[in-house]
Amino acid sequence: MFDLVAIGSGPGGYVAAIRAAQLGMKVALVEKENIGGVCLNYGCIPTKALLKSAQVLHYAHTAAEYGVELPTPAVPNFANVIARSRGVAENMRKGVEFLLNKNKVELIQGAGRLLEAGKVEVSDVAHRVSIVEAKHIIVATGARARELPMLPVDGKKILGYRHALTFDRLPKSMLVVGSGAIGSELAYFYAMMGTKVTILESLPQIAPNCDADVSRQLDRSLRKYGIHTMVLAQLLEVDTSGELCRVEAQSKKGVEQLEVEVILSAVGVQANIEHIGLERLGIAVENGKIKVDEFYETNAAHVYAIGDIIATPALAHVASAEAIACVEKLAGLDVNPINYAAIPSCIYTSPEVASVGVTEQQAQDKGLDFKVAKLPYTASGKAVASGARDGFVKLICDAKTDKILGAHLVGANVTEMLAEPTLAMNLGLTAHQIGSGIHAHPTMSEAIMEAAEAIHGKSVHI
Amino acid sequence: MFDLVAIGSGPGGYVAAIRAAQLGMKVALVEKENIGGVCLNYGCIPTKALLKSAQVLHYAHTAAEYGVELPTPAVPNFANVIARSRGVAENMRKGVEFLLNKNKVELIQGAGRLLEAGKVEVSDVAHRVSIVEAKHIIVATGARARELPMLPVDGKKILGYRHALTFDRLPKSMLVVGSGAIGSELAYFYAMMGTKVTILESLPQIAPNCDADVSRQLDRSLRKYGIHTMVLAQLLEVDTSGELCRVEAQSKKGVEQLEVEVILSAVGVQANIEHIGLERLGIAVENGKIKVDEFYETNAAHVYAIGDIIATPALAHVASAEAIACVEKLAGLDVNPINYAAIPSCIYTSPEVASVGVTEQQAQDKGLDFKVAKLPYTASGKAVASGARDGFVKLICDAKTDKILGAHLVGANVTEMLAEPTLAMNLGLTAHQIGSGIHAHPTMSEAIMEAAEAIHGKSVHI
Repeated sequence: MFDLVAIGSGPGGYVAAIRAAQLGMKVALVEKENIGGVCLNYGCIPTKALLKSAQVLHYAHTAAEYGVELPTPAVPNFANVIARSRGVAENMRKGVEFLLNKNKVELIQGAGRLLEAGKVEVSDVAHRVSIVEAKHIIVATGARARELPMLPVDGKKILGYRHALTFDRLPKSMLVVGSGAIGSELAYFYAMMGTKVTILESLPQIAPNCDADVSRQLDRSLRKYGIHTMVLAQLLEVDTSGELCRVEAQSKKGVEQLEVEVILSAVGVQANIEHIGLERLGIAVENGKIKVDEFYETNAAHVYAIGDIIATPALAHVASAEAIACVEKLAGLDVNPINYAAIPSCIYTSPEVASVGVTEQQAQDKGLDFKVAKLPYTASGKAVASGARDGFVKLICDAKTDKILGAHLVGANVTEMLAEPTLAMNLGLTAHQIGSGIHAHPTMSEAIMEAAEAIHGKSVHI
Repeated sequence: MFDLVAIGSGPGGYVAAIRAAQLGMKVALVEKENIGGVCLNYGCIPTKALLKSAQVLHYAHTAAEYGVELPTPAVPNFANVIARSRGVAENMRKGVEFLLNKNKVELIQGAGRLLEAGKVEVSDVAHRVSIVEAKHIIVATGARARELPMLPVDGKKILGYRHALTFDRLPKSMLVVGSGAIGSELAYFYAMMGTKVTILESLPQIAPNCDADVSRQLDRSLRKYGIHTMVLAQLLEVDTSGELCRVEAQSKKGVEQLEVEVILSAVGVQANIEHIGLERLGIAVENGKIKVDEFYETNAAHVYAIGDIIATPALAHVASAEAIACVEKLAGLDVNPINYAAIPSCIYTSPEVASVGVTEQQAQDKGLDFKVAKLPYTASGKAVASGARDGFVKLICDAKTDKILGAHLVGANVTEMLAEPTLAMNLGLTAHQIGSGIHAHPTMSEAIMEAAEAIHGKSVHI
């Protein structure tokens, strides 16, 4: 009899397990595939390894701009790039396994399924079934790639992100359908490696969830790298019967015909709510996601759900935060509900994209009384010295209270810089508090300070 | 008649001038050399350009680790590296000139000197003297390299930082005397370019102002790059009469003989208090620095001093902050004095170093009741994916109030990450407030969150 069992060992499940163990609970963690889930094995971590290789290759290609000469051009060894990425994922997975072990979490390999209150049925690869009993059950089975009827993923010509992360060759050309974080990052990666990439986005802008100015900058930068971007675009026909994939697409510019070696489907994710026994406990589902209260309990007592399977942002750090809040609450600690207005999100292209809070458009749509200021990277000595002029920091503040409502950053290092405005939003800090704080010179984070000063017309450098 | 005249156009003087102009004052700015001062022309900015070239070269040399192949090794074109750095400095200087112009600040080229209350005498290169009258005078003449009697800088064999930033050739070997920010950065830069570098530090550790753990990590990293580091070391003899410089030095390991092509003297700075007329107004000086009150007024009414010329940390961002506080106060605004307990400082080697607040040793020496926690970069998925395992985040907190007392970071991107703990220190935030805030995954800034959680024994990843 465990105190807690979590189904799924992604950044929701494994963090829940470790935190529960730290609080003295006896914990089991059920996983049918790899410890660490998609994030660690086929998501956040291995993509960052690939993107680092892309960055190194890009530096090599542009080395002359920095006074560094390459007598012969650098070339990617694609197999080694993929192998390094797999090695990084494996290394981090072993790290999590070590932590689970250290915290005496019992790992149970197999597919978990709710059986009845307090009972989870686990069937392993050999279809042997065992029953795990626990006072509390956390469902953290995550999500998988969504598929379009017109783009059935076959792993050969039509790829999902898993295939793209582990592909056996560098394709000469690729159509990326969808330009969220996954689509944009993989489009950038393959373009850097030498693939001729086209992005097809059905919404009016690349990286559709971003602030419009950020999207425009990203679009401009991606086009600089030779990526062809199409927005407000729809697939009309996809024919994979020949050597190349023939695609017909409609964009605002008219109908385009494309021939590409492979197509990457990156049209979002859907929650893994099937085959986990929700119906046995009568657990309520809405729009494909499990319904929970503010501390993640479902309508079945002592059964909780966190991460991509509930209707909160499908991001690893959200899953981990929900894991901690859920576990601490069920352990009887005093816990504040998560502030979903201050969830950071990043895209690790180059330039990087980092956002928290409302976009300018959302602020307008909501009729907020706000001020906005923008500091371009061309005004940042560190950015110019780093050869990273493409970018800016935009802050949105409440016109009356001066509190930060949103921060939208694009440029080098912004994924690290986002921590400051996110902290500010979490604690209800003001533009004045950020702008009057000394920032180290020369850093790109000074741009955040200057944007905050610019809210009050006090920026020295614009 | 001006409202304000500033003598010196570094990050103290030019920021004072612009802020004053924004507040409606009629402003003059006196500069005898280049607009932007040392920081912009021979300091912060051009060094960052050089260090970026070093980083690009390092990526090229280690490209195979990322799956990128260079058929022939990359080589620095040293003249181009220097030329790029000069171009960046010039570009940023023109930017400041544009801003001064836009704000209608009157630039007066020449050496400024206090004449009497409300009057500054300016003599230009042709020794023509003019008098500038202003209600308020800000002295912001900065600092210059300190020289050791045994190391008279000649620009040929014994270099100051200006020579090192503009050298006409890549020396085969170099002794760097002093390992503060300037010494460490230039040692790293030249080592990356291919120079055989030795660092000689008289104090017990490299980067003597840093937390001891940070210094140890930096020392280890520099030695990995082939830099020979000597601590508790003294120069016994320097002979520059031959082809090479012959140096005898005593370290804790005994007496060492070195032969190097050039020696870089990087033993700190001294304030430019001479020839600026301080004696005419009877302005009080102590230990080579002008004495000021908490809003930078000297003992002479309406005469202020900011930046490297007063006894506050000799850092560009401190000078700029003092400029703003000084000007806003004399303009009659409501101003808080600067909190000198929360001054960030950085070293832009690789790994980077970033610090704010007390070191662990200082906390012990002061008898503070504190807690400390450290999160190694090997536990950061982003750091591992980026090939940047060397580093950690250390936080020091008050054991009772939980407020951040110090943050000491070493590793990739830490100079940008420092903004978060600096903001926290400025506002008296707690480890709990940082640790319970969601940080984007995967970022290196998660290490700050985890270190904060580790203060309370709650870090998931250690």
